[in-house]
Amino acid sequence: MTYATTAPALALDDLHASLTDPVLDAMNFLNEVVARFPDALSFAPGRPAEGAFEVEDLARHLRSYTGHLERSLGWSRDRVRTHLFQYGRTNGIIHELIARTLANDEGIHVPPESVVVTTGCQEAMLLTLRALFARPEDTLLVSSPCYVGITGAARLLDIATHPVPEGAGGPDPEAFRTAARRLRAAGRRPRALYVVPDFANPSGTSMDLAARELLLRVAAEEDLLVLEDDPYGFFVRAGSARPTLKALDRERRVLHLGSFAKTALPGARVGYVVADQEVVGRDGRRSLLADELSKIKSMTTVNTSAVGQAVIGGMLVECGCRLREANAGAIAHYAGNLATLLGELERNFPEERRRRLGLSWNEPTGGYFLVVDVPFAADHAALEESARTFGVLWTPMSDFYTDGGGEHRLRLSCSALTADQIVEGVRRLARFVESRAAGPAGSR
Amino acid sequence: MTYATTAPALALDDLHASLTDPVLDAMNFLNEVVARFPDALSFAPGRPAEGAFEVEDLARHLRSYTGHLERSLGWSRDRVRTHLFQYGRTNGIIHELIARTLANDEGIHVPPESVVVTTGCQEAMLLTLRALFARPEDTLLVSSPCYVGITGAARLLDIATHPVPEGAGGPDPEAFRTAARRLRAAGRRPRALYVVPDFANPSGTSMDLAARELLLRVAAEEDLLVLEDDPYGFFVRAGSARPTLKALDRERRVLHLGSFAKTALPGARVGYVVADQEVVGRDGRRSLLADELSKIKSMTTVNTSAVGQAVIGGMLVECGCRLREANAGAIAHYAGNLATLLGELERNFPEERRRRLGLSWNEPTGGYFLVVDVPFAADHAALEESARTFGVLWTPMSDFYTDGGGEHRLRLSCSALTADQIVEGVRRLARFVESRAAGPAGSR
Repeated sequence: MTYATTAPALALDDLHASLTDPVLDAMNFLNEVVARFPDALSFAPGRPAEGAFEVEDLARHLRSYTGHLERSLGWSRDRVRTHLFQYGRTNGIIHELIARTLANDEGIHVPPESVVVTTGCQEAMLLTLRALFARPEDTLLVSSPCYVGITGAARLLDIATHPVPEGAGGPDPEAFRTAARRLRAAGRRPRALYVVPDFANPSGTSMDLAARELLLRVAAEEDLLVLEDDPYGFFVRAGSARPTLKALDRERRVLHLGSFAKTALPGARVGYVVADQEVVGRDGRRSLLADELSKIKSMTTVNTSAVGQAVIGGMLVECGCRLREANAGAIAHYAGNLATLLGELERNFPEERRRRLGLSWNEPTGGYFLVVDVPFAADHAALEESARTFGVLWTPMSDFYTDGGGEHRLRLSCSALTADQIVEGVRRLARFVESRAAGPAGSR
Repeated sequence: MTYATTAPALALDDLHASLTDPVLDAMNFLNEVVARFPDALSFAPGRPAEGAFEVEDLARHLRSYTGHLERSLGWSRDRVRTHLFQYGRTNGIIHELIARTLANDEGIHVPPESVVVTTGCQEAMLLTLRALFARPEDTLLVSSPCYVGITGAARLLDIATHPVPEGAGGPDPEAFRTAARRLRAAGRRPRALYVVPDFANPSGTSMDLAARELLLRVAAEEDLLVLEDDPYGFFVRAGSARPTLKALDRERRVLHLGSFAKTALPGARVGYVVADQEVVGRDGRRSLLADELSKIKSMTTVNTSAVGQAVIGGMLVECGCRLREANAGAIAHYAGNLATLLGELERNFPEERRRRLGLSWNEPTGGYFLVVDVPFAADHAALEESARTFGVLWTPMSDFYTDGGGEHRLRLSCSALTADQIVEGVRRLARFVESRAAGPAGSR
């Protein structure tokens, strides 16, 4: 593209600081690399598998939803039409279906009014952060490495984040406690903590039941709210599903962030947050936090697309609000892919070879991701070389650490590949790793 | 709803200050009053007319869009499926159709890459404000009275706004100049100004061509960007449509905010911003402002719903990207309604009566709204009384002034009523006004 030379240009330095923040650049860089090497096998993006989706399904889902309104709720045709046409309820129109699904699938029992339907889970994060973070000293604790969606949203709102290193068992409750106390001693106000308890993005780690219970205790003792993000919880490879933090929450400390992108349809852009906390005004008036989030949502997107909600609503109606059962095929797909990926890593890097190379990886019990520790800098330059010369893409882990770290780690996502692609992808990855390991010592 | 007494409550004072801001409360209050008096005739909300919309149309629009991809662009079935299913391009998938429509309807010629498709125009405002406002001293000038969507979004981001009183001819360029200079002298940085040039919400005023040209000159001389919001421009009652500021913009000073809520389908929640400004990094690298907005959008909603975009895309395909022509029926409807409203005001308040009452109103040449100056406080209490006793709803203008003002003004919206409803509504309004005017002097 060419530009007229007379137009005044804006200085990037003069725009909001988030635009020059590496967190915000990371996602764009990855998208751009993926686009530049369309023939590479990609372990990079956390894309959901497309399963049996067909475009024609959209019309069926819409009919399922409007049929539900007409037949189950007895709505008139005119009312249904207005419902889909007009600006609607700020907090969404499928909150009751979502509440029923959460009860069926997760044993989470909350009033439908506490469910805020959002334009994807990302908006849920934005609303939640905006509501809870009021003062300059308010700080969000994040388990690190951390999903860039939450740190990026915090950056947009100029909210301070503080990384808390996870352990092999995922987010570390005692480390959160220590961090909260230290921050408080330094005059900051630790306000909430963010965790992905199941098969975290990016590390694939999970919290066991004892860690979940301890985290809730720490949150209560340190007066922290818990932002629980659980997009991958259905996708168990080994063992059984564990209760979400929200299902264990007796004190309404947990805000449960949800997504239909992995379990239903990313293109609908529908997510939600359960915010059943009570809010008390100066005059003693009480409201639900969800109602406060509604005020913010009216200034971010006004409504979530009624059309998008109707499609997801139709899918929920079709499965009787039992989305976990409806995901049986997807669960098997992701579990099989992760097993294949682990098996191929083992086959390509038998013990003797990986000891020689200084290579290791973790073995997540579910989800989309695992992490490989490599004997070289897994940076953007290495990724380019891997894509160009070896035809395989992955994600540098360092993008997920806000204060440095992860320089010798890479994330592999196997969600949207076939078994054959995984086999070939690991073969290519092995060649790339071998070439790097044989490279100059300086590349380490 | 009952709450367990053991749950810790959050103090509203401890949440973000926007939640106790009257701007954010205003919209919610109005929605709530409308809901409480469902039988009242409502001149309150700026709801689009539903026209001939039927639920089944959604499936047709989806087919029109996918047909366009397959037949006009030659896409494979698989590619179309992925396009609708997956996470997609951050800045949207119907940007080319929107660019073509802007060229046809508005004579706005911009590269499709400069169009950012958003979750309604509200997200476009949020992204734009976030990108442009970087420092505490950065200030947004808004023509006052002002649409609460922009002042609310600024409040969410802790961005300072400065109201600039409009005149009878709408936003006042020289007043913007004076305000910018004063702010600069006081150490602030006036960064951009926000205007609705056509049939503004809430006042119904419009800028003539000379005012538009002068505004662009003032913006250039005072180094201000212009945020142009133009949801009502099609809906001309008298005279002819005027060029948008963006169509007149030779310097790329104007960011053009657009909505399909009034011209296509509110329930799709699709809007956009044209951001063809050039941005220069410290290293000399150049980008489009639209690309910078994309980084922010990836942290607010990631994508605009592909399903919502496909519905709007299908509508654009169906009308050959000539949305103004497709709106001929809507244009006639709104023009007719506004003429009826003006005629009924005249009929119910003939000159002698309105002189006695101290009543007057403006006569917008198009759009949804007009303003009545009344001889009593048009506040929330008056609105409640009007709804309860007289069965008619309107909007207090004072909600649209951020620094006081408009206490004796009310907004009437006639967009979603029938002619009969307008006739009956004005009759009720006249009884209400008469009762107030006859009331105690203290109510003035």
